[in-house]
Amino acid sequence: MKVIITGGAGFLGKRLAHKILQLGALTDARGNQRQVTELILFDIIEAQGFNDTRVKTVAGDLGDANLLVAILANTDSVFHLAAIVSGEAEQDFDKGMRVNLDGTRALLEQCRKLAKSPKIVFTSSCAVFGGPLPALIPDHQELYPQTSYGVQKAMCELLISDMSRKGFIDGRSLRLPTITVRPGKPNRALSGYCSGIIREPLNGINAICPVEPSTRAWLLSPRKVIDNLIIGHDAPASAFKHTRAITVPGIAASAQEQLDALRRVAGDEVANRVTVKIDPLVTYFMNSLPIEFEANFGRALGMTADTNFDEIVKAHIEDSSQ
Amino acid sequence: MKVIITGGAGFLGKRLAHKILQLGALTDARGNQRQVTELILFDIIEAQGFNDTRVKTVAGDLGDANLLVAILANTDSVFHLAAIVSGEAEQDFDKGMRVNLDGTRALLEQCRKLAKSPKIVFTSSCAVFGGPLPALIPDHQELYPQTSYGVQKAMCELLISDMSRKGFIDGRSLRLPTITVRPGKPNRALSGYCSGIIREPLNGINAICPVEPSTRAWLLSPRKVIDNLIIGHDAPASAFKHTRAITVPGIAASAQEQLDALRRVAGDEVANRVTVKIDPLVTYFMNSLPIEFEANFGRALGMTADTNFDEIVKAHIEDSSQ
Repeated sequence: MKVIITGGAGFLGKRLAHKILQLGALTDARGNQRQVTELILFDIIEAQGFNDTRVKTVAGDLGDANLLVAILANTDSVFHLAAIVSGEAEQDFDKGMRVNLDGTRALLEQCRKLAKSPKIVFTSSCAVFGGPLPALIPDHQELYPQTSYGVQKAMCELLISDMSRKGFIDGRSLRLPTITVRPGKPNRALSGYCSGIIREPLNGINAICPVEPSTRAWLLSPRKVIDNLIIGHDAPASAFKHTRAITVPGIAASAQEQLDALRRVAGDEVANRVTVKIDPLVTYFMNSLPIEFEANFGRALGMTADTNFDEIVKAHIEDSSQ
Repeated sequence: MKVIITGGAGFLGKRLAHKILQLGALTDARGNQRQVTELILFDIIEAQGFNDTRVKTVAGDLGDANLLVAILANTDSVFHLAAIVSGEAEQDFDKGMRVNLDGTRALLEQCRKLAKSPKIVFTSSCAVFGGPLPALIPDHQELYPQTSYGVQKAMCELLISDMSRKGFIDGRSLRLPTITVRPGKPNRALSGYCSGIIREPLNGINAICPVEPSTRAWLLSPRKVIDNLIIGHDAPASAFKHTRAITVPGIAASAQEQLDALRRVAGDEVANRVTVKIDPLVTYFMNSLPIEFEANFGRALGMTADTNFDEIVKAHIEDSSQ
C-alpha cells in the first residue's frame, strides 16, 4: 500500500508519518488491513528525521503537475495536510486561493486520473463555520466562514464531497479544532497563540496572550488529531451519506482555563510568564470561530477528544522530552 | 452607468436587458438612482433583437482574459447569468467546473481589479441545497448539494461572500427557483420539463412529464425572476451581514398541480397533450432538490413570488403573444 502525506515536512505531517510507520498498516478502500510499503512525504521542503526504508521524501510544489503525476502513480491513500495557514491566507488572498484551493484541486484531479480512486483525507478546519452560531454546533450547521482560509477550506469540502459522489475519489474532509500544543516556532495561524501561551513559558520564554482571557477556543492535542486522522482514513466509504465532511471532536477551553491548567501542571513561575496584550486581528478571527461542537458523526466513527486541558499540557511536556 | 449582462444572449439575459432599458436607471453602490448609459450583452453568441443605442453586444468566452479586461473597464454593475446548466454540468464535470467555477472566478478577479468595485449579481440556484431537508427550508439551511451544478454554484457563493467581505467586489448571490415557463426550445437543465409540460402543449406539441405527477418543485415565472434580480441588484450592501447569498421567493407546486393549472387556463385538449414517462436522472435531480423555502431575507428585501401557478401559465401565454 502506497501512502502520501502532503505537508509531510510539517509538524503534523511528520507526526502522522511516524504514527503510520508505527502502525505498519491502514485500512484500504476494500476494508482490508494492508501493510504500508511506501510512504511519501511531500512538502515544499524536504522532511527530515526519517530513517526507514518505507519513507521517501519529495520536495516540490503542489502546482507542479508533472511532479504530482510522478508521485501519485499507484497511490492508495493521500493525507492532504499542506496549506497556507489562516493568518497568511487572510493577508494574502491570492496565495491562499492558489495553494489552498487550486493546489487541492490539482491534487484531487490527479487522483481522479488514477486507475483505482484513492482515499483522500483532507484537513479542513472549524474555520468553515462563522456568522450567527448556536452555543453548541450541530454537525449540519450552515457554513458562513468569515475568513478567506475558512472559505477556501469550505470550497474544497464541497468539491471533495462532489468528486466522491461521482466516484472520482474516496474523500473525507476532517474539520480539525485548533491544534495545541504545537511544538517549535510560532507559525502564522491566527490561533497560534493557543500553543504559544503554553509552549513558550514551558521553555522559559515570556509569551503574549493576544485575546481576552475569557476567549474560548475548540482545541485538540496533536496526539488526538493524529488518531482521528487515521480513524477518518480507515472509515469505510459506506459510512458517508450526503457529505464527506466530518467535524472532529475537541474540547472547549478559555485562555484563562488554558493558563490555569498550565499553572496546575507546571507551577506559578511558568504560568506567570504570560501577559495579556490584545491583537485586533487575532481577536476578530477567534471571535468569528465557533466554540463547541456536537461532533456526533465523528464520535460515531470512533473519534475522541482529550479528556481535559491538563491532559493536553501533560502530553505536550511528555512529547517534548522525547 | 455601465452595466454588463453575461449570458446576455440567453432568454433570461435578454429579458433582463429589456427590463433595464425600460427602467432606464438602477441604484448604484452609493444608493443613487443612475441612468444606464451603456448596457453590454456578453455571451458566447451575439445577442439578437436589440435596437437601442445604449446596447452593445459582445460575443466571446468568459475564459478570454483580454476580452474580459476590455469589456469590464469602468463597469458599475454586472449581472452574471452565464452558466452551464444542471444536466450538462452533471454529465460533463470538467466543462461545468471550467465555466461555472473558473469562468465566474475569472470574472470576479477582473472586477476586483477595477478602481471602483462593481455590484455583481450572481444567479445561484436552489440546487445548492440537498441531503436531509426539512419541509420548509430556512434561509440558514446547510448546503449539501447533490449535483455538480449545485456544488459549483455553492463554491461561487462562498467566493462571492468572501470577496465582498474583503471589499474586492459588492456581490450578491440569488438562489433562483426553477424558472418556468421558459420560451423557445428545451435546454439541458434537468428541471427543463417544468417549462416543457406547459410550453409544448400550448404550441400544439405533445410533451413528456419525466417525473411522477406528485413530484413538487419550487417555481418562479421569468417576470418575477427579472423583478427579483433588479431588487437584488438595487439592495444596499449594508443589507447583508455574514453572507451575500439570498434565497429568492417562489411557489411550490407538483407536476399534477402545474398540469391542472394548464387545464384550467387552456382547456382539456391542451392539457391532454402531456404524458408521464419517468426519466431516472431527472427524477434523481428533482428529488435531490428542496421544495419549499421561507425566503425571509429575500422577502425582507422586497422580493416576491407569483401568487399561484395559474398566474404563471397566463403570464407565459401573454408574453408569448407579444
